[in-house]
This record gives sequence, C-alpha cells and structure tokens, in this order.
Amino acid sequence: MTNTLSLLSEHGCFGGVQRFYQHASRETGLPMRFSVFLPPQERISEAGGKVTALLYLAGLTCNEETFMAKAGAQQLAAELGLALIAPDTSPRGANLAGEADSWDFGLGAGFYLDAQQPPWSSHYRMESYITAELLPLLIAALPLDAERMGIFGHSMGGHGALTLALRHPDLFHSVSAFAPVCAPSHCPWGRKAFTGYLGADESIWAQHDATALIKALPVAPYPGGILIDQGLADKFLPEQLHPHLFEAACASINQPLELRQHAGYDHGYYFIASFMADHLRHHARQLEPVHAQV
Amino acid sequence: MTNTLSLLSEHGCFGGVQRFYQHASRETGLPMRFSVFLPPQERISEAGGKVTALLYLAGLTCNEETFMAKAGAQQLAAELGLALIAPDTSPRGANLAGEADSWDFGLGAGFYLDAQQPPWSSHYRMESYITAELLPLLIAALPLDAERMGIFGHSMGGHGALTLALRHPDLFHSVSAFAPVCAPSHCPWGRKAFTGYLGADESIWAQHDATALIKALPVAPYPGGILIDQGLADKFLPEQLHPHLFEAACASINQPLELRQHAGYDHGYYFIASFMADHLRHHARQLEPVHAQV
Repeated sequence: MTNTLSLLSEHGCFGGVQRFYQHASRETGLPMRFSVFLPPQERISEAGGKVTALLYLAGLTCNEETFMAKAGAQQLAAELGLALIAPDTSPRGANLAGEADSWDFGLGAGFYLDAQQPPWSSHYRMESYITAELLPLLIAALPLDAERMGIFGHSMGGHGALTLALRHPDLFHSVSAFAPVCAPSHCPWGRKAFTGYLGADESIWAQHDATALIKALPVAPYPGGILIDQGLADKFLPEQLHPHLFEAACASINQPLELRQHAGYDHGYYFIASFMADHLRHHARQLEPVHAQV
Repeated sequence: MTNTLSLLSEHGCFGGVQRFYQHASRETGLPMRFSVFLPPQERISEAGGKVTALLYLAGLTCNEETFMAKAGAQQLAAELGLALIAPDTSPRGANLAGEADSWDFGLGAGFYLDAQQPPWSSHYRMESYITAELLPLLIAALPLDAERMGIFGHSMGGHGALTLALRHPDLFHSVSAFAPVCAPSHCPWGRKAFTGYLGADESIWAQHDATALIKALPVAPYPGGILIDQGLADKFLPEQLHPHLFEAACASINQPLELRQHAGYDHGYYFIASFMADHLRHHARQLEPVHAQV
C-alpha cells in the first residue's frame, strides 16, 4: 500500500496553514483522518527548515477537528513556531459489531493502544498507528523536526499522551495533559476499555496505565517535568481521573510533576483553551534547540 | 410573559465565565438560546461594575455556540474587560412549512430582520428580538454598560451587524464585520431571503441592505470608522459578499472604512480567529470610557 496523503482542505490561519488530511493506514487497515497546523513560513525558515511539533490526542467522542477548532492553540503556535498534529480518536469504518453502541468504547474511543482481543485487534491499533505510521509519515512529508517532538492531550487523550510518552521516550521529549485519565485500571472508563481491548489479564493493563507505568521505571523519564492541568469543577474528576495517584507515582521515582488544580473550571474546551498557552510554552521550553537555550 | 433567563450551563474560561442561557421570547414567541462571556470579576470591578459589551452575529447554519467555541475571542476579551454576547441565528421550533428545506433560508438563516411575509412574520423577528428584547434584558440582568455596546458578525451576521448598526445607532457605538454580505439585494443569498421574508417590493429590501442604507444617510454614522476583514480565498466572495459596493457607498458619505483583504484566507472560523484580536481592539478603542481615552 502506498502511504499517500490526501489533502482534504487547507485554511489560512494566523499566518500559517491549517490542513486536514486523509490516508490509507497500514496499521488500522482503514482510511484515517488527521489535522496539521503549520506555523508561518518565516518561522519554519528561522528554525532551519524543520520546526518543533506537538502531537495532541483528543478525548472520548472527539475527532481530528476538535482540537484545531476549539482549543485556540494556533495563535501562540504561530508565534512560537510550533507545528500541531491531531489524529482521530479511533479507526472509523471497521463496522464491527457493537462498535457504535457506547460513547466510551469503540468509535471515538480507541484509547491510544493496540487491541489484543478480537474483533478489535484487527483495526483498533491506535498506538502503532500513531507511533509507527503517522509520525514517520509526517516527519518525511512535512517540515517537522523528529528530534523535537512533544505530546499532550485531554482526558482519554491525556491518558494517551502520558502512556505514549512513557512507552516511547525515544519519540517524545516533552509531555503534558489536560484532565487526563491518570490511572485507567482504577476507573470505569479505563476498566471497560481495557477489558474490551486487552482482555481480563490486568498485568497487561499495567503496560497502558500511566500510574502503573511510571511506578515501574527506575529513573524519571522526563527530568524537565510533566505539566498537568485539572479543573476542580470537572464532573469526571472524582470517579475517572485520579491525578493524585499519578502524582504519588511520580514522587516515588522523583519525576517532577506540576499538577495545577483550578477552581471553577470543568472538563471541556473552555477549560483547555484557558490554559493552552502554558502548555505550548512548557513544550517549547523543553524542546527548543540547544543553541537557542539560555 | 415573564422574561426569566434560564442558565443552561456555565464554564470557567480565562478567569471569566462562559454562559449559555435560554428564555421565552416575546418577539419570536418561542424559546430562544444565547451565550454570554463575562470577563473576570476584577475587570468588571475596575470598570465600575459595568463593562463594555460586544454583540456578535453568526452566519448561516450557525447557532449561539459557534462563536464562543470557535472564534477564540475570550482570551483577549478577558484581558480587555469586554463582555461578549452571541444570539442564535434564527428562531427554532416554529415548525413552519419549508423551514428546514434549505440551509440559506429559514432555520439558521434569520438574516437579523423582522419578516413581513406570512408565515415567517409570526416568528422570524430577529431584529426586534435582538434590539428590543434581548439587549434590554441583558442590560438589566448583567453588568453591561448600555452606553458602551458594539456589534460585529460574520457573513450573514456581518450583514446583520452592519444593518443593525446603521438602523440603530442609538444602541451601537462601534461596528465591524468578517466577510459580511454587504449588498444583499444584489446577491443570491440576500435576494432569496429578502423575497421570502420581505416580499417582492425591493424598496423594502433597501431598508435592510447595508450598502443601500449607508448611501441614503446624510452624514457618516460611525466617524470612528468601520472595520471589515475579507479573505481572498473565500469562495463566497465573488457572488455573495460585494465589499467593494459597500466601500463605494461609504466613500460617498465620507464614512471611514478600513477594508482589509487577506490572501490565503477563506470564509471559515480559522480566518475569523486569525483577525479576532484586531476586531476586539477596534471596538475597545471606540467604546472605552472618555476618562480612559488618551
């Protein structure tokens, strides 16, 4: 299969370009969509032809458009010279039995892992899709610096950002999250998804649980620090998110973590947009080229 | 009918609050929804308890959420101490025959006027709804300064902003637009809407056509200037928008107009977001209290 990118649309945006693409994916066996924001050409030139890139993973029910339309990240990304990449949240079009029955499993709920249980294992391979297919493809096709790539996300996508960062520290050099699912083995969303995609053996779950993963590491993988923002008016906080379990796990291996808690903010994109600038600066600071560091 | 506002949801947003309301409208005879962003309490206090407010009118197919979710206006509005108000684009629930048959007439396409033709005239009264009902209600209920109110909008809502500003200079003291329908009597969207809502008499149309309205004025109504941004990759520009007709009409009465044309930008919210800050500053500058002017 040739991995040709089809440009679905391109929109001028803060001096850069907002693009939507589709391609035939080897890993999922289906057409996949994703979006890319590229900063203004002068930022790309200033960076020597390849810019820092941040991969954003969205939450349940979202798609490749949500972040670009609602998070308000492009203005500062244009200023800082950052590219932004947002994949979809699951394969689409597999037409598996039960795929569309619930909003927290199947369509829009791929959980950024490779399913091991049939029928999901044939198409629901979001981890391999993102790390082994999409990123190499984009690094080859676009002016992105493979050595300066960060990852962040929201809710289920915060789980994805933390777990992919911990499982692929060779790919990602900075990580942050908005209201992430921090300990999926201990919350209803995670237990449902892991049971369905991974099966009943909880030792396999631990390989995709940010809190369990970080506890098992010998040294802090992100010495520059992890940033997490959490709204205190988030209705999913008590049952689904468990940031304090992740905080304790980080402390156990001296992984620096800035866990900020914000009164009055909920789980949605008005919350995410409100703290977006801090996340972009967090990544830009950690990913800037050595010659630019002060 | 008591005009009680029901708060549907409230979201923390850049230190202020993003709210969605519903109320029973006298003018449309139906439940209407709208959204309000209020800046942080300290900005309201600094302004003496009442802040400058901008009314935003959205385009065809949009609703009261579109601007707040996609335009990225809240960050700078919070800094500048501006409230933002966005009504829906038409009544909903009238269940008139043909109401949902096309995307450019009826639902989502109220054109910000009072229909004179049955059956539309009984519910499609967006001009009276906004100017005689919604704004007085909000000025009474929220910390908004009735003397410092601006209006802006996009596409059909740009038409709405220009025409309501020209028809109600007592209510609005600044005006701007993104890709507005500038001469609706001369474009397919406008001719279809005016025929349906106003009838065949084109002399009535002229009362709701920004270009015709401004030509008929003895003196410039907005001496501080009108700001219009237009993308040159906007597929609706050639047939529907006609900014140059409005520009010529402004020149004929010495109405200052800054018409900015941007290569590479289309008709959507990535374009709007890219130039939002300039619009907020345009309004803030013209609406600031006399004691704050330098």
